[in-house]
Amino acid sequence: MQTRCTFSTLPKTISQVISSSGSSVVKTNGWIRSIRRKKTVAFADLVDGTTSEPLQILLSQNEANQLSNGCSVELTGELKKSEGKLSRLEFHPINLKILGSSNAETYPMQKKYHTAGYLRQQAHLRSRTSLFSIILRLRSKITTQLHSFFSSNNFIHTHPPVITSSDCEGAGETFGIRPENFFSTSANLSVSCQLHLEALSMGVNRVWSLNPTFRAEGSVTSRHLAEFWMLEAEMSFIENLETVMSLVEGLIKNVTGKLIEDEAWKEFESVKGRENGTIVDTRDHWMRLMGEWKRISYADAIEILRSSSESFQFEPAWGLSLHSEHEKYLATNGPIFITDYPRSLKPFYMLASSSTTVAGFDLLFPTIGELAGGSLREHSYERLEQRMKEDGIDIPWYLELRKWGTVPRGGFGVGFERLLMFLVAQENVRDVISFPRWRGNCRF
Amino acid sequence: MQTRCTFSTLPKTISQVISSSGSSVVKTNGWIRSIRRKKTVAFADLVDGTTSEPLQILLSQNEANQLSNGCSVELTGELKKSEGKLSRLEFHPINLKILGSSNAETYPMQKKYHTAGYLRQQAHLRSRTSLFSIILRLRSKITTQLHSFFSSNNFIHTHPPVITSSDCEGAGETFGIRPENFFSTSANLSVSCQLHLEALSMGVNRVWSLNPTFRAEGSVTSRHLAEFWMLEAEMSFIENLETVMSLVEGLIKNVTGKLIEDEAWKEFESVKGRENGTIVDTRDHWMRLMGEWKRISYADAIEILRSSSESFQFEPAWGLSLHSEHEKYLATNGPIFITDYPRSLKPFYMLASSSTTVAGFDLLFPTIGELAGGSLREHSYERLEQRMKEDGIDIPWYLELRKWGTVPRGGFGVGFERLLMFLVAQENVRDVISFPRWRGNCRF
Repeated sequence: MQTRCTFSTLPKTISQVISSSGSSVVKTNGWIRSIRRKKTVAFADLVDGTTSEPLQILLSQNEANQLSNGCSVELTGELKKSEGKLSRLEFHPINLKILGSSNAETYPMQKKYHTAGYLRQQAHLRSRTSLFSIILRLRSKITTQLHSFFSSNNFIHTHPPVITSSDCEGAGETFGIRPENFFSTSANLSVSCQLHLEALSMGVNRVWSLNPTFRAEGSVTSRHLAEFWMLEAEMSFIENLETVMSLVEGLIKNVTGKLIEDEAWKEFESVKGRENGTIVDTRDHWMRLMGEWKRISYADAIEILRSSSESFQFEPAWGLSLHSEHEKYLATNGPIFITDYPRSLKPFYMLASSSTTVAGFDLLFPTIGELAGGSLREHSYERLEQRMKEDGIDIPWYLELRKWGTVPRGGFGVGFERLLMFLVAQENVRDVISFPRWRGNCRF
Repeated sequence: MQTRCTFSTLPKTISQVISSSGSSVVKTNGWIRSIRRKKTVAFADLVDGTTSEPLQILLSQNEANQLSNGCSVELTGELKKSEGKLSRLEFHPINLKILGSSNAETYPMQKKYHTAGYLRQQAHLRSRTSLFSIILRLRSKITTQLHSFFSSNNFIHTHPPVITSSDCEGAGETFGIRPENFFSTSANLSVSCQLHLEALSMGVNRVWSLNPTFRAEGSVTSRHLAEFWMLEAEMSFIENLETVMSLVEGLIKNVTGKLIEDEAWKEFESVKGRENGTIVDTRDHWMRLMGEWKRISYADAIEILRSSSESFQFEPAWGLSLHSEHEKYLATNGPIFITDYPRSLKPFYMLASSSTTVAGFDLLFPTIGELAGGSLREHSYERLEQRMKEDGIDIPWYLELRKWGTVPRGGFGVGFERLLMFLVAQENVRDVISFPRWRGNCRF
């Protein structure tokens, strides 16, 4: 019996047409990006977002006159080698059908440079640009690769809840829900899946999730969203913070390595100097991640900052948070883990690593700053109870996880959009998520 | 350069120990599920949720006396063939370390039958049961397979927003968010990703998502959750409803076929008659999905219902909704698509298939009833504008998608937990999601 079936009744995408060999008659569809009229013939670039390479269509003047930028067409024809100087492929239509016309003058996606800010105001049409469609494809590829990486390491993918009565980080900056009495208890949108992932990992050892998380952030910066996706993992039977850091490093290198192996950087070549001039050499950019990642303590980081010749706006000192300027300085030469922060700076659930520090880390990335955080989790019932009391936190079921067969444990969370921001070299986190939400902005 | 790296510094899981050959000394971890004391020796079942097969540990009486059900241990030792009658594998510990003790008398996960209702009240510990850990593993496997299926069919995985200002189904039963003025516009939790997926598919052709969706449902039934995950896909350049139905059928058969191929039913053998006697023969159950799925019109469905000898609580008649009893009757012999519902029963965005019907379908499943719904979407600007006016719906950006280069299109949504309910043969949707939310219930 054939139990695996793929699905093959869909019309061919442009990506499929370009990669198929032979010159049989095929049908494909797309949007006209641009038209170039020559003396006797015309050429149109057809796109459908499945590849950054447009399909070049050979047209008669008469056919070309019926088309305009942005209109959608169905084409039946043959793919042939161009007779021109550049041996590009050319699609020779036998039949051309206009599916939807477009008034080229009012069409918001002109064939010219649009600012990122303008495109955010056209979020519903933004996927028609080369750059944003590449970002969408890359995001999808990374998500699929995450499943592959985690399942090969015995992690189970889970869907922890979005609405929760258990606030992981201790009040503040959460969204509540209406109607307020719906759940009997007060409920808010989750800021992290950690507590629920820990509960699951107490049964099935290793779990991960890629879930939406929410912060009612007052600050509006290029690195913050009110709704973003967080990649989190929790493991039971882990006694060493090094293991957690190695997992984060291994997973990001795995994902990046897959992009390099698949030559995904080639997609970016096509948009260089066209839609957005700021794209760096993508392969080199990704290769920066494949070297050694340093691991230093918070105390050493403070020493490095204090002895640097850089003039910081905020003076670094033991016991104070690292500011964004400090984080970016420390990560200048590549990703770096900062470990053993003062206990006063970190949440109640982190295991102590000394009388004054905790076994936790922040992962800092060049240009981004903080990308991820992780820690060993306090696994002693008595010590956790004490810490929760001190902080005025009351989550009985979370404490109870340590009551019967507690285990040493650890985990981490990666800001998924921040990782994407780095990988696609965008300066604003709003440009790596399809419909960004931030204070005052939920138009779509 | 080696760009792919897997991560190998984690201790071995029980699944890895059992599947590894050779008798070298290994370290593993887990929780004691039960202890059987014999005359001179004792045996303990060790579990860690990575496989349904417990690891049998050979212990001295002295070692066994230190252990109790639920406690967690770290073991170093060798895996050997048992000398007993059943040639099971036995783990011979060289070193046994108790990580976390457990008071067997108060431990909520006794080695006995617990009702599903009791386990829901222990949602934070539920993953320690065989059945729930199987469900977690199966859910994860299915999610990973979905990525494989969709990417092989040129679909891009996306993360549409959870907080939205655009209510797809037209008000009612949505959760709002607080603070209410955060986004300037009113905002609610999404009941479906469809509108946003359509926008993305207008740029990149085919998209899919597996996103949390929310309904502030008044009705509390075994098939409804206030928070559930919806599997949705949208395609541009689709002119035929058959194509959409074939995609749904192809994908569910692909996922199920993969489970059969991987012999995933064997996991359920282990819990039969132990934790929950209601598990059916899983392989046979899955094979029911691999045959032909019927496709009939709503009009024909009404005729079948009216001419049946079944006495329904609600009389079926053209123009009225199908009730749950009708849906289950129609799907008695296998999955069935019901197409061309009266326009008055379906939302504004569906394309007309006649003057009184729409090109949409519901997919009905045995025992479950409605599992999925899909349709061709109205792609004419003028007709959509008219329908939106009639229904008093005002989503300017959604209408605008039809303004420049509109295309014939279609898509569907599958209730992911309902699909799981069927696959794992559970009677309550609350038992296939880790932390279920329903009216009055958000304890965790």
